Amino acid sequence: MDCELEELEFLRKRCSFSLRQALSLGQNDPAKNKSVGTMFQSADLPQNISKEDFEARLPALREELLDAQHKLQENKDFAVVIVMAGLDGAGKGAAISRLYEWMDTRYLFCNAYPEKRSEEEKLRPRMWRYWRDLPARGEVSVVLGSWYQKPLGNYVYGKTDDDGLERQLSAINRFERMLTHENVLLLKFWFTLPTDEQKKRLDGLKGFKSHRHYFQEWTNLDNHRKAQLAGEKAAIHTSTGYAPWVVIPSQDPEYRDLAMGETIADAITRKLEDGKSIPNSAPAVVSGISKTSAVDAIDLSATLSKDDYKQQLEHWQDRVAQLMDKKRFQKRSLVCVFQGNDAAGKGGAIRRLTRSMDPRTYKVYPIAAPSEEENLHPYLWRFWRRIPKKGHAAIFDRSWYERILVERIEGFCSESDWLRAYNEINFFESDLTNEGVILCKFWLAISEEEQLRRFKAREETAYKNYKITEEDWRNRLKWQEYSIAAGDMVDRTSTRNAPWTLVASEDKRYARIKVLKTVCQTLEKALDKGK
Amino acid sequence: MDCELEELEFLRKRCSFSLRQALSLGQNDPAKNKSVGTMFQSADLPQNISKEDFEARLPALREELLDAQHKLQENKDFAVVIVMAGLDGAGKGAAISRLYEWMDTRYLFCNAYPEKRSEEEKLRPRMWRYWRDLPARGEVSVVLGSWYQKPLGNYVYGKTDDDGLERQLSAINRFERMLTHENVLLLKFWFTLPTDEQKKRLDGLKGFKSHRHYFQEWTNLDNHRKAQLAGEKAAIHTSTGYAPWVVIPSQDPEYRDLAMGETIADAITRKLEDGKSIPNSAPAVVSGISKTSAVDAIDLSATLSKDDYKQQLEHWQDRVAQLMDKKRFQKRSLVCVFQGNDAAGKGGAIRRLTRSMDPRTYKVYPIAAPSEEENLHPYLWRFWRRIPKKGHAAIFDRSWYERILVERIEGFCSESDWLRAYNEINFFESDLTNEGVILCKFWLAISEEEQLRRFKAREETAYKNYKITEEDWRNRLKWQEYSIAAGDMVDRTSTRNAPWTLVASEDKRYARIKVLKTVCQTLEKALDKGK
Repeated sequence: MDCELEELEFLRKRCSFSLRQALSLGQNDPAKNKSVGTMFQSADLPQNISKEDFEARLPALREELLDAQHKLQENKDFAVVIVMAGLDGAGKGAAISRLYEWMDTRYLFCNAYPEKRSEEEKLRPRMWRYWRDLPARGEVSVVLGSWYQKPLGNYVYGKTDDDGLERQLSAINRFERMLTHENVLLLKFWFTLPTDEQKKRLDGLKGFKSHRHYFQEWTNLDNHRKAQLAGEKAAIHTSTGYAPWVVIPSQDPEYRDLAMGETIADAITRKLEDGKSIPNSAPAVVSGISKTSAVDAIDLSATLSKDDYKQQLEHWQDRVAQLMDKKRFQKRSLVCVFQGNDAAGKGGAIRRLTRSMDPRTYKVYPIAAPSEEENLHPYLWRFWRRIPKKGHAAIFDRSWYERILVERIEGFCSESDWLRAYNEINFFESDLTNEGVILCKFWLAISEEEQLRRFKAREETAYKNYKITEEDWRNRLKWQEYSIAAGDMVDRTSTRNAPWTLVASEDKRYARIKVLKTVCQTLEKALDKGK
Repeated sequence: MDCELEELEFLRKRCSFSLRQALSLGQNDPAKNKSVGTMFQSADLPQNISKEDFEARLPALREELLDAQHKLQENKDFAVVIVMAGLDGAGKGAAISRLYEWMDTRYLFCNAYPEKRSEEEKLRPRMWRYWRDLPARGEVSVVLGSWYQKPLGNYVYGKTDDDGLERQLSAINRFERMLTHENVLLLKFWFTLPTDEQKKRLDGLKGFKSHRHYFQEWTNLDNHRKAQLAGEKAAIHTSTGYAPWVVIPSQDPEYRDLAMGETIADAITRKLEDGKSIPNSAPAVVSGISKTSAVDAIDLSATLSKDDYKQQLEHWQDRVAQLMDKKRFQKRSLVCVFQGNDAAGKGGAIRRLTRSMDPRTYKVYPIAAPSEEENLHPYLWRFWRRIPKKGHAAIFDRSWYERILVERIEGFCSESDWLRAYNEINFFESDLTNEGVILCKFWLAISEEEQLRRFKAREETAYKNYKITEEDWRNRLKWQEYSIAAGDMVDRTSTRNAPWTLVASEDKRYARIKVLKTVCQTLEKALDKGK
């Protein structure tokens, strides 16, 4: 295959090697429960585009790219730096070749940095080689083997610890912020593949002697886990408002190149329009190309019989009560977040959960539009105030995630506001979990049809009538937008310490048990650690 | 004294105690060479205002403060958080009392956080107490014992290491950036005193039993040194464009309160004018109140006889040659930066320095206005390119510091650009010194009168004629502005690893020897470490 050959050539040049498995953002840890989320899990799903669609979209894209590039070259308002990172074998090399095919190569150049610095480079500080090659305003530079290479590699191979890695990621943020201030548009692409696919592709290269070392390390499970952790840390720390990571699912070469190309064209065009203003906004999180998200991919067919339900309900409710009664829980606290499609059954699931709890130890917070007082404070203020004390639980029926769901879609905040929120929320939650808060986040999913059935039932049943409003019907019209926002949310805020649990809720019984069971298992694991 | 009593009351409440000596930014380490600079050394100089001047300025200030506060309360565009930090005994408590006297207390409140958290607070994550008390838009909150308290205390008392501290300072930056985005104007004041004065004030409190522990620690030199280091790190890492530290020399209570009051009034007024725009700019580095800077305070009277000069010149030139010839220098490199008043003798000093060097190992870079190509890149690009390789030296006749000198004063870049440059330069230099570059920075100072004499001599002497231009005369008219900019520069970029050396250059012979000697001593110390 053509793309494999291109890839090979880049591998031979030993570019971006130390990243290796580092940042395998899309992968689920095989040793872990499947329901535990990881960042960017949607990249694990098949993302495809048909040859016909690809060919149909190509002419417009190429025109837009050239047009943007020429305008940029004319007014020289800013430079563009495109960072290519991600899994080996995902086709970074092939993607770059495609850019060379599509764009004007007079103003486009590629800087590939091998892991080992040249003699010339070794004689200077580490960042020297990147500074030297920065493009002038008007030019576009593609960077392979970027400033992420060394810090992540060192972490994966045990040369730096958590503090050290975070310190280096902070330095990267400072560098990237400075570039942004100095009129550099930074685009950071993360090319990813499902684990199996990557293994298959790399196996194809095994014959080459120079890679033997590499494959030995790849099979080391410990390295693999550290690589995932490194990837998550990098994604959280360096996905800033001015330079977020854009994840490119790369199994289908056409999909990969189109997603990349459209993001580049879109970002340059937008910045040309904004002029020289210092960017607070960022290039689009999602390019125009459609994507199957982890939320779209939930299998809704799961059900539970009435008898099983009754039996399990009792079992898990008892278990919750026992766990929260443990002495060790007095040093921890529990926060549960419920989000989901309208009418997916959040309220019912919450009631089944709290029924087993001591009313003195928990509170349920239904989150509606902020009050006047709340509106006068930063948006996280109303949630910080409600963080439970040790030995207690807080259950949020909707939560801070409304910022990147309803507020994003209804335009209640600006684009730059919700873009920075992913990051802010990740850090907010790590502030909680680092200090002993046990966090469970549930996305309750139903199909569009099931929602319609439930809406109608609510209208027809007198005592359920209060549950359905004009707004619900209005929101329903934006099903697709909410679905995209939920997908981005799960992709960008499912972290190791605060994963999303996706709950198929077409069958209410199944959903309620899944919630209870997840809370129990999370509590159990967390309290076990504290032993 | 009234201010001592106020101070006492706050000390009794045990507020902001763990900061203690931490961040004694203004102090010179007594164990160190006096010429080694520290951050904010101007705060060590006596800064005074006469009673009459104070009384004269007060009515306007109070009116401005009240006016700003009422406008803020009316339009509720943002909240104001004033962080009070700095040395104990500097009068933070008294300064707060003054604010209560001057401002409308209906919209002003003080949140003082003791080092030990309350029972209620201990049951939640560490940041909870600060979130809970955030002011609403329209309100002003004064914070004593802020989020800096714990991280700095832990570092000083050895509970965290360098990586850990920097990680926590990054978390603080994220928090403060988020607040800024969420319409909070952050003002951070650092109250400082000359070391002797502080000791005197604290001795006055020694009778109080509860402070015994405190005074034992204060006399521990090791803690004192770590406190300085913590202060420098905090100043560098958290003096951001959106929330820089404002240093308040606090020996004279009137000066202290006026400097603080004018900064607050000015910052609120400016932000009211800017409206809701997300701040890239920051409150003024210097308030309207005049200040004696470290540059103003250079004693220019030093001289050297011709004979001494000849002898020493030979001695130190030999020494430079020997040092650069050492094997250990092959793993290091040398960067010298020369800035100073026009006609202070930079060129002459550089020639005396390089005369002893092997021409194959050094380069002198005269820095003029950037070329067209340089202008198309970030401003540090042209300097990064010229970083010497190991075993070599680069001498910059003017440098990256032009950003915060001529570019600031002549308006060649925006205010937000030069404000962020302090930080960027500090990190640029630590990128260099962390990787083995030995850095010497010289400020060559002459008096206004001496400059006039030299300008005239240049005009009158044919072969010196090329050295004097219209521009020099124009710059001379802005003597005062350049002097302030140089003072801010030394205050904000004199770090432990890259200190400024202030060189009295009224006598050229003295200046040249001082430069040579400093280079030798710095090289010696650095190469000794590498042994």
